[in-house]
Amino acid sequence: MPPSQTPVHKTTVALSAAVTRPFPGSEKVYVTGSQPDIRVPMRRVSQALTQTRTGTEPNPPIYLYDTSGLYTDPAASVDLLQGLPATRAGWIQMRDDTEELTGPSSAYGAQRQQDPATAHLRFAHLRTPRRALAGRNVSQMHYARQGRITPEMEYVAIREQQRLDVLRHDPAYRELLQQHPGEGLGAQLPETVTPEFVRSEVAAGRAIIPANINHPELEPMIIGRNFRVKINTNIGNSAVTSSIAEEVEKMVWSARWGGDTLMDLSTGKHIHETREWILRNAPMPVGTVPIYQALEKVGGKAEELTWEMMRDTLVEQAEQGVDYFTIHAGVLLRYVPMTARRVTGIVSRGGSIMAKWCLAHHQENFLYTHFDEICEIMRAYDVSFSLGDGLRPGCIADANDPAQFAELRTLGELTQQAWQQDVQVMIEGPGHVPMHKIQENMTQELRHCYEAPFYTLGPLTTDIAPGYDHITSGIGAAQIGWYGTAMLCYVTPKEHLGLPDKEDVRNGIITYKLAAHAADLAKGLPGAQIRDNALSKARFEFRWEDQFNLGLDPERARAYHDATLPKDAAKVAHFCSMCGPQFCSMKITQDVREYAAQHQFKDIDVALEVGMQEKASEFRERGGQVYA
Amino acid sequence: MPPSQTPVHKTTVALSAAVTRPFPGSEKVYVTGSQPDIRVPMRRVSQALTQTRTGTEPNPPIYLYDTSGLYTDPAASVDLLQGLPATRAGWIQMRDDTEELTGPSSAYGAQRQQDPATAHLRFAHLRTPRRALAGRNVSQMHYARQGRITPEMEYVAIREQQRLDVLRHDPAYRELLQQHPGEGLGAQLPETVTPEFVRSEVAAGRAIIPANINHPELEPMIIGRNFRVKINTNIGNSAVTSSIAEEVEKMVWSARWGGDTLMDLSTGKHIHETREWILRNAPMPVGTVPIYQALEKVGGKAEELTWEMMRDTLVEQAEQGVDYFTIHAGVLLRYVPMTARRVTGIVSRGGSIMAKWCLAHHQENFLYTHFDEICEIMRAYDVSFSLGDGLRPGCIADANDPAQFAELRTLGELTQQAWQQDVQVMIEGPGHVPMHKIQENMTQELRHCYEAPFYTLGPLTTDIAPGYDHITSGIGAAQIGWYGTAMLCYVTPKEHLGLPDKEDVRNGIITYKLAAHAADLAKGLPGAQIRDNALSKARFEFRWEDQFNLGLDPERARAYHDATLPKDAAKVAHFCSMCGPQFCSMKITQDVREYAAQHQFKDIDVALEVGMQEKASEFRERGGQVYA
Repeated sequence: MPPSQTPVHKTTVALSAAVTRPFPGSEKVYVTGSQPDIRVPMRRVSQALTQTRTGTEPNPPIYLYDTSGLYTDPAASVDLLQGLPATRAGWIQMRDDTEELTGPSSAYGAQRQQDPATAHLRFAHLRTPRRALAGRNVSQMHYARQGRITPEMEYVAIREQQRLDVLRHDPAYRELLQQHPGEGLGAQLPETVTPEFVRSEVAAGRAIIPANINHPELEPMIIGRNFRVKINTNIGNSAVTSSIAEEVEKMVWSARWGGDTLMDLSTGKHIHETREWILRNAPMPVGTVPIYQALEKVGGKAEELTWEMMRDTLVEQAEQGVDYFTIHAGVLLRYVPMTARRVTGIVSRGGSIMAKWCLAHHQENFLYTHFDEICEIMRAYDVSFSLGDGLRPGCIADANDPAQFAELRTLGELTQQAWQQDVQVMIEGPGHVPMHKIQENMTQELRHCYEAPFYTLGPLTTDIAPGYDHITSGIGAAQIGWYGTAMLCYVTPKEHLGLPDKEDVRNGIITYKLAAHAADLAKGLPGAQIRDNALSKARFEFRWEDQFNLGLDPERARAYHDATLPKDAAKVAHFCSMCGPQFCSMKITQDVREYAAQHQFKDIDVALEVGMQEKASEFRERGGQVYA
Repeated sequence: MPPSQTPVHKTTVALSAAVTRPFPGSEKVYVTGSQPDIRVPMRRVSQALTQTRTGTEPNPPIYLYDTSGLYTDPAASVDLLQGLPATRAGWIQMRDDTEELTGPSSAYGAQRQQDPATAHLRFAHLRTPRRALAGRNVSQMHYARQGRITPEMEYVAIREQQRLDVLRHDPAYRELLQQHPGEGLGAQLPETVTPEFVRSEVAAGRAIIPANINHPELEPMIIGRNFRVKINTNIGNSAVTSSIAEEVEKMVWSARWGGDTLMDLSTGKHIHETREWILRNAPMPVGTVPIYQALEKVGGKAEELTWEMMRDTLVEQAEQGVDYFTIHAGVLLRYVPMTARRVTGIVSRGGSIMAKWCLAHHQENFLYTHFDEICEIMRAYDVSFSLGDGLRPGCIADANDPAQFAELRTLGELTQQAWQQDVQVMIEGPGHVPMHKIQENMTQELRHCYEAPFYTLGPLTTDIAPGYDHITSGIGAAQIGWYGTAMLCYVTPKEHLGLPDKEDVRNGIITYKLAAHAADLAKGLPGAQIRDNALSKARFEFRWEDQFNLGLDPERARAYHDATLPKDAAKVAHFCSMCGPQFCSMKITQDVREYAAQHQFKDIDVALEVGMQEKASEFRERGGQVYA
């Protein structure tokens, strides 16, 4: 075998320990649905006992939404060469509306499968693609509109619920369930997420379940305003920077920290092969921007793009299992000049490709003119639309301008067109927007796109912090999430400057997870505050390990703590390095509270009248010392 | 001389190059006021030429608000042993309402000055303290209410203005001055900040200029809702972690990245000496929490605190030059039991100290009962109040509860009491608050505290991200800044976990600078968008160096860029590593725009009708290549 054909993946495609080690104090558990193969993963974090003066009290385990896939399940062993188990395969077959093809039906897909030059890169166990039977529609929206609850919908309902239906009746969670009433601003969050609720939201177009029939490895999830706010992460190799192995590692890394979906934005040589490796091992929905690959096929010359080639690319990717496509069909010829006086013009890559094509041919965007045909492809595999905002603002000055909102209205028309074929749709949004202009984006989207889920990049709330744009955008993301955006596309610290490395990806993800959670709290998502309450109680009781483990990034929290107090003894100490051992504000409250508990005050006023005098004596008796 | 008395500072108190090197592409300039010693520093960033097809166009310099002090002025040499020049000394003397004392009038201050054990730590050039003449009031508020415009007020007006009055009439800035109309939510931002406007805001209590007469090294600044949003940073040594030299270095570091004020929260052995070193070298207002030092003096036993000792501490610190004191006078005995059922009780150190004292004695907080006497001290040196929120919520669950708002109303009463003596006041705010509960904090503060400036810690919008609380709180800070908070107290990534190091401080500051700026943009502060516009234009034109230099952290932006494209040639390249050389979205817009400019379109519709056909041909002629 010549060296170029050596199956290098056998040695190089292995995950590092850093991306697969289980989370501390955590256990992977599965909640089973109405059939045994609906097994929804959750992370259960166990907690230490609370020490009281009279003894100890238990703290119940906390269940966390788990995106990390089998990679954090010590009971599972994932062979990247085989890919993840095809859990959904049975569900898809049972519906009896698809057929197994004899091979890829795209010309490019077929050619790549035979190409000896890429044989050494090729995923070894290629599955034969499936497609809807002629005349059938296999989208989750189609089933939903038929009144059918699919296993995917039931899975999603259990996943969104996170056992809240059970915890609500368990006295151990009573205090942890306390939560501020939210301000939904029009969101209708149900007390209990039932499969029927999921179905009705998908049927109405208010939510999507991206789930290509050729991605049976998927752990289904939902994107919609009336569910948990989700986050998307991006990976992608480029000509010089990364290998397939690195991309797979980044995908698993993304899942680990909480990426709900993942876009593969690769633009290098081996896009097709890289994507196959990612999909076969991805527990989350994977999205792409197919025009990037189409552009590669014409050597980067946008004006040489054709509908036929784009069509072939869509089929190629749909048969690999891509779950959603960003399609820039709203960049119309007549909108392009509207960007002429902007400070930063067109900043979307896909948008500028289509603008260039439109200008070169003086013709309407072929994605717009062929939109119905695109829908036909989408429904045959259940690929969801992510209607691209090719004219999003690239700086504060260009926010909310006529070009942006003209395109948004076109995306609304296209939404209706897609829904006529029961194709699932979400709408992409900006970008760069000052805080006081964010809500208008949401309002306009809801109005013009008929409440289709909004999926925004940030928005960045100022342009002046290159190197910190995960934060400038995290601020906007939290706000727009509160206002109703269903999914937030993350931004890393390297935005505008370079390609993110693993630490950048982690920083971007955690920033967006906390922004999404802040939005859930503001909306009043039932049960959202449990984790805050549990972590704060652990903090107050100096259960350091629990505080770390319940956080979004237990490893960093521990490392930061240990930077000043590395010894194990400090993990049970009733102080930290911030205030030191001599005085800690939290301790005094414990005294106050214990005192109140001992005297079983009915309310605060009684505590005031009765308790304080006695408390004063008690303190003096103990020499006023809080620490024994 | 025995080793313990060796003046170690001579060798150890030297600043590292990292904290003093000038910013790239920048020059320190001074704008002179009505008298030659009113010299307001600004950072002027020069920009490269814009390359066009027909030649080049200049880009005007951008003026940035500069907090970094003389440390970034290559023309100045700062001797830390001497301290900064006492610029304000003449202004203070001219007012002829103060006297130079013969020595410290606090017992502790006098004792420390003679103590041989700390001789080796002592600042060498101690200045004799000043105090108001008997019966006089030397607060900026007092002068303002008398109708007097002080040099400090004029200085502040020039500083806030940032040459906008001049730039507004300079055609070179015409496009850079475009700005979205803001949503002030009640703020009244003037088009031009005049000294008279500053005076009237200080007189009304809506703004403060913290400026102790014993801190003549100060570069005056203002804190108020109708001015730029400011940020506060914290430093402080503790028993084991840092030396005086480290604290001075941290102070300069803080100033460098944009800290507008600084709190010295030291709790270690040499609080008094550390503070002296910091004050003599600090260009920004310095605040403290005097109760921390008082607690040190009684060996950490809160119940042994007395008013007399507290009084001596206030005088001690006022005579050193501390510009504002956090005073927890709103923690009333009757409020303490209200915290009993909270998840995290009392989380303010000062608040818990006072709560402990109240409980131990069953007496009202002595800071409350002696408040008028405190005001008498404050006005004799012009120390401003930062009325502490000792009962702020320490977690999401406790946000906006009765204890918090009860204390806030008491702070409002105390504000009125302080204003009766013309003492300047700002109000501290939370803490941990979910997004939808933030605005209520601002509304209540404005109502109950009569529009005195609000100064908040974050707020953190979720509890679940230890290690990332600069971001959970940056989200809340940007929002509350928009709603009207005048100053944001920074939070570092180590919050809740440990003591911040220099990188943590930098991350905390930049996060808060961008949050404050996002707030200024949302409020519509005149001129605020210039920096965003200039940076975005530089980004669009691939002026990489300008993009770095105009950012909040030029060093990090450059380092991130260079991580993938280190060569100098990449700094002029029309692409970056994110999209690679083959296709860049920004380039096409330049083509569109140049085309529009060549044809001098009057409006977009004309461009559409006339231009597109021609544009199409032009593209085809050039082979559709965007890159030459």
